[in-house]
Amino acid sequence: MTRPIPDIVVGRLPIYLRALSFLTAEGTQVTSSHDLGKRLGISAAQIRKDLSFFGEFGKQGTGYNVGYLQEQISRILKVDREWPMALIGIGDLGRALARYGGFAHRGFRVVALFDNDPAKIGQAIGDLKIMSIDRLSEVVQEQNIRVAMLTVPAKDAQKVADLCVAAGIKAILNYAPITLKVPEGALVQHTDPVTHLQRMTYYL
Amino acid sequence: MTRPIPDIVVGRLPIYLRALSFLTAEGTQVTSSHDLGKRLGISAAQIRKDLSFFGEFGKQGTGYNVGYLQEQISRILKVDREWPMALIGIGDLGRALARYGGFAHRGFRVVALFDNDPAKIGQAIGDLKIMSIDRLSEVVQEQNIRVAMLTVPAKDAQKVADLCVAAGIKAILNYAPITLKVPEGALVQHTDPVTHLQRMTYYL
Repeated sequence: MTRPIPDIVVGRLPIYLRALSFLTAEGTQVTSSHDLGKRLGISAAQIRKDLSFFGEFGKQGTGYNVGYLQEQISRILKVDREWPMALIGIGDLGRALARYGGFAHRGFRVVALFDNDPAKIGQAIGDLKIMSIDRLSEVVQEQNIRVAMLTVPAKDAQKVADLCVAAGIKAILNYAPITLKVPEGALVQHTDPVTHLQRMTYYL
Repeated sequence: MTRPIPDIVVGRLPIYLRALSFLTAEGTQVTSSHDLGKRLGISAAQIRKDLSFFGEFGKQGTGYNVGYLQEQISRILKVDREWPMALIGIGDLGRALARYGGFAHRGFRVVALFDNDPAKIGQAIGDLKIMSIDRLSEVVQEQNIRVAMLTVPAKDAQKVADLCVAAGIKAILNYAPITLKVPEGALVQHTDPVTHLQRMTYYL
C-alpha cells in the first residue's frame, strides 16, 4: 500500500462498486474481471490492475466474491458509512436532488437544505425544511457535515463555495456551469450536462 | 489536423468553452493560456498544447481574442448550431432538465419529452407535452433528433438506450446509475452524482 494511487484509478472504483451493487441486486454471487469488464466496457486487465493497488480480492480462476469485493471497495471509498450532506440552492434541480432516492445505501444522505430566497425559506421538502444560507456555518458544525452539493446560479457559485469551505465543508459537488476554485485541503467535482453533451457532438 | 486527437483533449474543450463564455459575459475581450489556466486549475502549457491540436488561435505575447476562440471551439465541438434533444423519463430530475435554462446558447434544446406512465402522457412542461415512449422512433425521425438524455430508472435504462439507438439517436447522456452499452457508432456519457461524491470521500 505504499504506491501512490493514481486519481484516475480512484475514479473508477465508484463505477466498479455500482456494478457490484447491481450484481448483488440481481443475486449474482461470483464475478470475474472479465465479466465486470464486459459490463463496463473496461478491459479485464485494467480492472485487475486497478484493484491490485488495494490488495488481493480474488483468486486466480475462481473470480471475485461479489459481496466481499463490494464491502472492500465501500470501505476503501469510505462509503461503508453515511455522509450527511448539505444541499444549497433549491431550484428545480435542487428539489430533484433533495428527493432523489439514489443516495441511500450508497453512502450519502441529504440532511440540510439551504437557499437565500425568503419565499423558499421554511418550505418543506420531505422531512426537511429549507433554511437560510445564513445558517450554513452553524448547521454544518452542529451536524458535522463535510459534503455539500451546490445547485445555485453560476454567478453565485464561487461565493457559496467559499462559504462552504469556511464553514468546514471538505467536498463539494458543483452543478453550476462554472469551474470553482477551492483551497488546498478541500475538493470539488463538477457536473454539467452540457460539457458531457458537447464532448459527444464533437464526434457526430 | 492529421494527428489523432486524444479523447481527453476533446473532453477539456467544453471546459475551455464554458470559461470563454463566462469571460464574454463579463466583457473580457482578451485572455491568455495563463489566465485561463488559473481560472480552471489547468496549466497554461496544457491549454496551449490542447489548442494546438486544432490550429493557431493566439499570437505569442498578445494572448487570445475571447470571442474568436469561443467561436472556433464552438465550431470544433459542433455547437455553433442547436442540437434538438429528446428527454426520456419525466420524474423529478427529468422535469428539472426539461425546465433547465442552461442548454440555450450552448448548443442544445430539449424538443421532445417521453415517458411510459399513462398518467404523465399528455401533461405539459412549458411548451412541450409528454409523449408516449411508443412514439420515440417516429418523433426522432420526424424531428431529426440525434441526442437524448435518459432520466429513467436503472432497471429500464439499457432497454430505453437500445430503443434510442434503434430510432437513430447517436449520443446519449445517461442519468441512470448504471453503465450502458451502445453499439459502435453510438456514444454514451454517464452522469451520476454518487460516483462524483464517492471519488471525493476516498480522500477525506
